[in-house]
Amino acid sequence: MADKRYALGIDYGTNSVRALIADLDTGEEVGTYVHNYSRGVDGIILDDRDVNLARQDPHDYIEGLEASVKGALVLAESVSGCSAEKIIGIGVDTTGSTPIPVDSNGVPLAFHDEFKGNPNAMAWLWKDHTGHEESDLITRKAHEHDPDYTKYCGGIYSSEWFFSKILHLANVDPKVYGAAASFVEHCDWMTALLVGDTNPRTILRSRCAAGHKAMWNAEWGGLPSQEFLSSVSPKLDGLSAKLYTDSHTSDVKVGGLCAKWAEKLGLREGIAVSVGAFDAHMGAVGAGIKPGSLIKIMGTSSCDMMVAPPEELHAQIKGICGQVDGSMVPGMIGIEAGQSAVGDIFAWYRDQVRWGVENLLPSDLSDSSDLSDRAKGAALQVLSAKASALKPGQTGLLALDWWNGNRTILVDPNLTGLILGLTLGTKPEEIFMALVEATAFGAKVIMERIQEYGVAVKEVITCGGIAEKNPFLMQIYADVTGRPMKVSRSAQTCALGASMFGAVAAGHFKRVEEAQPLMSGLKDTVYTPNPANRQVYDRLYALYRKLHDAFGTHDFTGNLHGVMKELLEVKRNALNS
Amino acid sequence: MADKRYALGIDYGTNSVRALIADLDTGEEVGTYVHNYSRGVDGIILDDRDVNLARQDPHDYIEGLEASVKGALVLAESVSGCSAEKIIGIGVDTTGSTPIPVDSNGVPLAFHDEFKGNPNAMAWLWKDHTGHEESDLITRKAHEHDPDYTKYCGGIYSSEWFFSKILHLANVDPKVYGAAASFVEHCDWMTALLVGDTNPRTILRSRCAAGHKAMWNAEWGGLPSQEFLSSVSPKLDGLSAKLYTDSHTSDVKVGGLCAKWAEKLGLREGIAVSVGAFDAHMGAVGAGIKPGSLIKIMGTSSCDMMVAPPEELHAQIKGICGQVDGSMVPGMIGIEAGQSAVGDIFAWYRDQVRWGVENLLPSDLSDSSDLSDRAKGAALQVLSAKASALKPGQTGLLALDWWNGNRTILVDPNLTGLILGLTLGTKPEEIFMALVEATAFGAKVIMERIQEYGVAVKEVITCGGIAEKNPFLMQIYADVTGRPMKVSRSAQTCALGASMFGAVAAGHFKRVEEAQPLMSGLKDTVYTPNPANRQVYDRLYALYRKLHDAFGTHDFTGNLHGVMKELLEVKRNALNS
Repeated sequence: MADKRYALGIDYGTNSVRALIADLDTGEEVGTYVHNYSRGVDGIILDDRDVNLARQDPHDYIEGLEASVKGALVLAESVSGCSAEKIIGIGVDTTGSTPIPVDSNGVPLAFHDEFKGNPNAMAWLWKDHTGHEESDLITRKAHEHDPDYTKYCGGIYSSEWFFSKILHLANVDPKVYGAAASFVEHCDWMTALLVGDTNPRTILRSRCAAGHKAMWNAEWGGLPSQEFLSSVSPKLDGLSAKLYTDSHTSDVKVGGLCAKWAEKLGLREGIAVSVGAFDAHMGAVGAGIKPGSLIKIMGTSSCDMMVAPPEELHAQIKGICGQVDGSMVPGMIGIEAGQSAVGDIFAWYRDQVRWGVENLLPSDLSDSSDLSDRAKGAALQVLSAKASALKPGQTGLLALDWWNGNRTILVDPNLTGLILGLTLGTKPEEIFMALVEATAFGAKVIMERIQEYGVAVKEVITCGGIAEKNPFLMQIYADVTGRPMKVSRSAQTCALGASMFGAVAAGHFKRVEEAQPLMSGLKDTVYTPNPANRQVYDRLYALYRKLHDAFGTHDFTGNLHGVMKELLEVKRNALNS
Repeated sequence: MADKRYALGIDYGTNSVRALIADLDTGEEVGTYVHNYSRGVDGIILDDRDVNLARQDPHDYIEGLEASVKGALVLAESVSGCSAEKIIGIGVDTTGSTPIPVDSNGVPLAFHDEFKGNPNAMAWLWKDHTGHEESDLITRKAHEHDPDYTKYCGGIYSSEWFFSKILHLANVDPKVYGAAASFVEHCDWMTALLVGDTNPRTILRSRCAAGHKAMWNAEWGGLPSQEFLSSVSPKLDGLSAKLYTDSHTSDVKVGGLCAKWAEKLGLREGIAVSVGAFDAHMGAVGAGIKPGSLIKIMGTSSCDMMVAPPEELHAQIKGICGQVDGSMVPGMIGIEAGQSAVGDIFAWYRDQVRWGVENLLPSDLSDSSDLSDRAKGAALQVLSAKASALKPGQTGLLALDWWNGNRTILVDPNLTGLILGLTLGTKPEEIFMALVEATAFGAKVIMERIQEYGVAVKEVITCGGIAEKNPFLMQIYADVTGRPMKVSRSAQTCALGASMFGAVAAGHFKRVEEAQPLMSGLKDTVYTPNPANRQVYDRLYALYRKLHDAFGTHDFTGNLHGVMKELLEVKRNALNS
């Protein structure tokens, strides 16, 4: 035990922050603690007048840092005999793009009395969409520019991203905008805080955040030019000087833990703090990403992550939302794809089927939130259990999983969900199964697109709540994609990945690739494709692609007349088999 | 009161028979009585091993005749001062095609001890689909024949129809088939029974039944030839001789009420009995059908009926399931179109939304059939109430109403339902509204097709449960079609229409056209199109037609890429209006 070493990973999510202390020999999570933000609604500052607004108060970040790390330490020390002195490095991941307007000392403007309580001076949470008009403008201007700055982020600049939010701030609150000496991503601000130097001119900026959300690319020497920004809006004149030129991968050490935070957290002063990154990207590393492995993080949406050596990937993969050198594993191109709704679709359907409980019972019962909560809790389980008894193809249904648009490969938020094949005999569990299948078809489209560009998908490792909780769904994913679905051993791959980078920055590992074989792992359960099911799904997938291309592209020329008929035939076959 | 005259209409439905005594001056329904069949499940003999089987025991027809007529008479005499002597004629309508195998005396084989309890010897109810393979064969053979015998029944011979059932009987029960001296439609058997002569060689056969379900047409001299029938199957050799050559419109008198049944029913011997017809066709007459009026009978499915003078309609209207001279109003071509599911789609959705009540409650509650029944009763009301608050277009949804295939104008049972435009925010009442709109779009397609052939739709008169009970739906129909929706005054247009034909056969009226202005009428409520809503629906209808043609026809060449986007735009406009 004497030579045991540990690292700390801190994972800032949408509603809470998690600290995790990992054993650097085994990846064992010896202490983990979650702190829920105390402000707003589950940590999110909302505005009744604008559903697009979602902010966070950076006070929650600071309070959560102390609470989560101390909590994890108590557990690690009491349960596993880990002591704080053996922690040698810290890594941080956060949501993003979540920029914070700061003053010239790097203090969030939200901390100024002048802007107290003003959401515009807080952190602009990733899912804030107030900048949707600004993002349209930026996209249009980028397309007119040579080079097109959206080239490596899928061709459409999102309202969720860095410059959309900054421009929206400039448009709606010139006072806050004018007071901002810089804008710092949440992940960068946390590492700066830990090393005790938040001067925005010297903060080390994350390659992951810069490359995926701020159009940073070495090809054009960093961020988009001031000339470009001014062409988008004269209000952005002078913005370049407030931002940064370089960005850094997460193996880089920002500095040593400052005395103040060492004392607050009960850690050794000077231990390494590595450059931050986004949660999904560090999560991919924590799940063991390497060339050939597709990491599929399955939650409300999906993130489908791969890395490829630069010499193997020469082109921009069409329709992939991000392709950034070093955004996950330093030295490799990080490929970020994903489906804009997965678990969200199932949650939507859960709410459809429990609607009756809330609306069709006698008032003394329907007013009972117990019944509603119970129905909410039971719905997906009951649907999954009933659907498990169905054979592939038996539903006669086919769906397009576009309830929240399509992120990859169509990069089009203005697409919507579709269900086809409905009959008077269609049952709720059949619809649920079709929704699960649709998300699996969507996942397969992504894999095929990446492979078209010479990046081989040799294995799929899943992580996230759905991967752990729903064997029914996982089997369908295996059957549809024709690939074994492996499941990450850790349920906390983001924080685990962050801890690996902390250990790399501390010099314990030369590279994360050294940490991964020790610290990442798989569960024993692997979902293996069933050959008979796969045949049926190959047929359904061809129909899915037909609908996908018909509704999602301009150049579809086929005829859809046979789609419903073929589904009925597949259904008959399934029922007779 | 001395010269008051009345007629009796007898309406045999799927689960019950209704007798109605109508005042011939006013159409007032002075006595009406419903008798529910006592055999099988709600009057239908089923078979657990074959969901397609649906038969009726003709004993129910006989018992129901006596019970319903006597019941109506008691009411008419006690409440309205009508006396049985003042009833001068009887008309009968039934479901169809509902053929009964009979012996050479016209006695149903089900009454023979030899075949007692054998469903094959009973009446083959309209919705029996056991002959689906036989119907495919008949369709194929008809298309090879010159003339194509399906020419006036939409190009596809249905499993619900006369010859499909007879051939299926020949295939599965040669003994019953061999014992059958003839096959008599339910409506024809009832009138034969009433006049006391069921000899199948002389029974007057209904033009309506013959023309719509048995490919009877004057163009080829009656029924399909024996040569054709034998080409379908040698088992049908000799069938022609067992059937008939002529068919008759319902203004024709079959004969006088026989002494036996006059006594049983308490009516005068010798009063006129008119030739029978199907319920929807007599219902259209009862609702006041005349050239220019579309009668829309809205129930589980819809029947959309028109009549046109032969000199105004020269062609077979493409995709219309039936076009038969004299099937409704003698001397006019009866046009029968319809949607294969309307109320059935809403009932399906009702069961979707109440699923949670049955599946997601604690077992002590979910086992309570009270709660489930209550949810069933409340669902459509609650959905309608919530949907009433939505603006047209606001849902962003579009559906194809093909849950049970498409009867008119695609004549294709192998089409299925579709919903498009679903998002994470889509609510059940929005889906319900989209389903209502889809059926309204389907109704509009039928109107447009009929008009393309020069038959002007000058007014729409609705009847049936939906028309009377759901103002929300009726307003959408008005807004979608751009036509006022009138509602038939009588809720019993079938029996009312039958009584009119009884009066015509009695000579009280020369033609039903004389009876209709006196006896048919409208409710005061008329649903008038809202011009603003109509504009939105015109836009949605164009999208509906695009989907309709893309999935329903072979020759669609357009592109569907804009459909989801346009729906989103319509939605935004609706929300901002």
